[in-house]
Amino acid sequence: MKRIHCTYHVLSSAAEIKAGARAMAVEQTVEVIEALFTPEINENIVGRVESVKPLDEEQTRWEVQISFADHLSGGHLPQLLNLVIGNSTMHSGIRLVDMELPDTVLSRFPGPQFGIAGVRRLIGVYGRPLLASVVKPYGTPTEAFEKIVYEFALGGGDLIKDDQNLFDVDYDAFCRRAVRLRDAVDRANDKTGRRCLYFPYIGGQFAETERRLDFLLENRITGYLIAPLLMGIEATRHLIADRPLVAMGHPSLAGVVFTSTDEGISKDVYLGTIYRLMGIDISIFVNAHGRFSFTREQCRKIVNRLRRPLGDLAPVLPCPAGGMRFDNIEQMSEDYGEDACLLIGGALLGYSDDVEASTRAFLEEVRQRFDEKTVAPEG
Amino acid sequence: MKRIHCTYHVLSSAAEIKAGARAMAVEQTVEVIEALFTPEINENIVGRVESVKPLDEEQTRWEVQISFADHLSGGHLPQLLNLVIGNSTMHSGIRLVDMELPDTVLSRFPGPQFGIAGVRRLIGVYGRPLLASVVKPYGTPTEAFEKIVYEFALGGGDLIKDDQNLFDVDYDAFCRRAVRLRDAVDRANDKTGRRCLYFPYIGGQFAETERRLDFLLENRITGYLIAPLLMGIEATRHLIADRPLVAMGHPSLAGVVFTSTDEGISKDVYLGTIYRLMGIDISIFVNAHGRFSFTREQCRKIVNRLRRPLGDLAPVLPCPAGGMRFDNIEQMSEDYGEDACLLIGGALLGYSDDVEASTRAFLEEVRQRFDEKTVAPEG
Repeated sequence: MKRIHCTYHVLSSAAEIKAGARAMAVEQTVEVIEALFTPEINENIVGRVESVKPLDEEQTRWEVQISFADHLSGGHLPQLLNLVIGNSTMHSGIRLVDMELPDTVLSRFPGPQFGIAGVRRLIGVYGRPLLASVVKPYGTPTEAFEKIVYEFALGGGDLIKDDQNLFDVDYDAFCRRAVRLRDAVDRANDKTGRRCLYFPYIGGQFAETERRLDFLLENRITGYLIAPLLMGIEATRHLIADRPLVAMGHPSLAGVVFTSTDEGISKDVYLGTIYRLMGIDISIFVNAHGRFSFTREQCRKIVNRLRRPLGDLAPVLPCPAGGMRFDNIEQMSEDYGEDACLLIGGALLGYSDDVEASTRAFLEEVRQRFDEKTVAPEG
Repeated sequence: MKRIHCTYHVLSSAAEIKAGARAMAVEQTVEVIEALFTPEINENIVGRVESVKPLDEEQTRWEVQISFADHLSGGHLPQLLNLVIGNSTMHSGIRLVDMELPDTVLSRFPGPQFGIAGVRRLIGVYGRPLLASVVKPYGTPTEAFEKIVYEFALGGGDLIKDDQNLFDVDYDAFCRRAVRLRDAVDRANDKTGRRCLYFPYIGGQFAETERRLDFLLENRITGYLIAPLLMGIEATRHLIADRPLVAMGHPSLAGVVFTSTDEGISKDVYLGTIYRLMGIDISIFVNAHGRFSFTREQCRKIVNRLRRPLGDLAPVLPCPAGGMRFDNIEQMSEDYGEDACLLIGGALLGYSDDVEASTRAFLEEVRQRFDEKTVAPEG
């Protein structure tokens, strides 16, 4: 039997940490006092405390390693999350910072359908980071949005997606706008001979989401933006697995998982490994030095989890967003390398009135640092 | 146009709080710099900062009130959450502590199908808190579980549910166990002339969840336990709305939303109002003085949000769990009153080897403090 290995950072006194670690292992598996389980349950089901080490000299912060039998997750995402952190999220001072899954668990997750390679095949661009932008702000007439996406594609942009605030309650209004923006991008693509992609935002009620995804499939729109924590972690996995569309994951609400420093799940485990298990193809996270509190080290760890080998799951395209400016393209290029998607929204729209020229200028800055190769897009 | 009124607690210096509050209002609605939106967008779409007040003398903590136009939520739960906290969850020191919804938004949510009144009708018990227990630990043979649920029902218990760790990967194994435990409860009900309910845990993959819920409907099982944050907030709302079954909400993983004191969403808004919008009929939360860090004041606030008037949404049965003991039934009776469901798991199973006698003893303690009325269960 293989095991799931988890590492936690725990706030505790030295006197209490051993009992505390054991309590976590019990809480997350059987949730009863020791008197109520048998030796067999203790051996096969209760989590096993593998190690307990102090993280500081004062012995107030601890690294606790606990392993769990692989069969307990059932290979299902909700049960895996319940197992590795579940009830322990309700204790102060417990944070999941690492999760290593055996192949017996990983093989139950198909992972990204496109991933880095699949997205590149659709766009036909290799050797440099992709350049992405955002359709916003909500409340702008569709004509103006058409102009933005058309000029972005004409300027050489690779992918433009709706803002997650851009939500039409009405299904027909959603369809009309999606097709108009798709057509605007296509008109530019016809001129450039390249293929820029347009992804609408998919949110709202679950049934409506399914209907909208079906519409995209039937109308030559290759992908979409979704916010997994709004729709649901398992629900997002289900929606992605159900249809051959590129899924771009947005972190709205997801800060509840990782922003607290002492609780929740680390940014890299959540936006890296858990997104990958969901099957997200492009993971949006916040670039360091932006308006949110992500550090370069945290961003590097997210990227590592998205791209490193993980069973047979395809690598995910990291998409740092927020805070990209002309003067930090150098830093972003260094930090993320060629297999990334640089997302620039407001800073691009605000750079000049001419979105085409702005896109060209940003893209040129990226191209200077990489060895771009383009091929005919597939499909 | 009516407005959604939200209150946040924000960590900030006095010098930065005004700009910070405005930045939140912009971030959650249009997410672009001010130069990029028109006066019409500012008036109709951007959130409006209603007030900013210090919470401490040092002026390091602030109460910020922001209102949003009702139409921005679209009456859909994912868009509502995106609007009221979305990207702001990624900032340190911002916590949503109140959310008041106008009837134009509330009317889009059917809410609980059963609620307090519906659950009471199924069980036929009025005038006192219901007594609930848990089927656990995982790894126990089904025969032993049959004995537990049979004896609990015979002792007068009202509702017994699976532990959220109790997950059969195999569909047939799930069905067999669910029917056996239903039958064991029914045998006791035939003897007592009362109706104790048994709720299986529904987790795992989304499609599997739908299949299992259908099985319950077809097999006279009236409700289920679900962990909304594992399955998904909107996905849970969808599953509940789709089938006439009693939904009991479990907080596994949900601690990420509320355990941090400075970020996320307060316990009462999440486990109270947001659970109610999802349509949860019975909301499990952690009783004060248990092994988790819930205070009596926080529990009272949760209960208030579950039971108080909220548009046409039915009141939800509060279900304090964890830490219930013989010696704090007095405190729990005082804190929660008659319209609650007291959940006692390990402490009941560990009270004596005789679950029937233990249940009777706990129930007697509850009955002494209330004026019980029983009627024939409906349906």
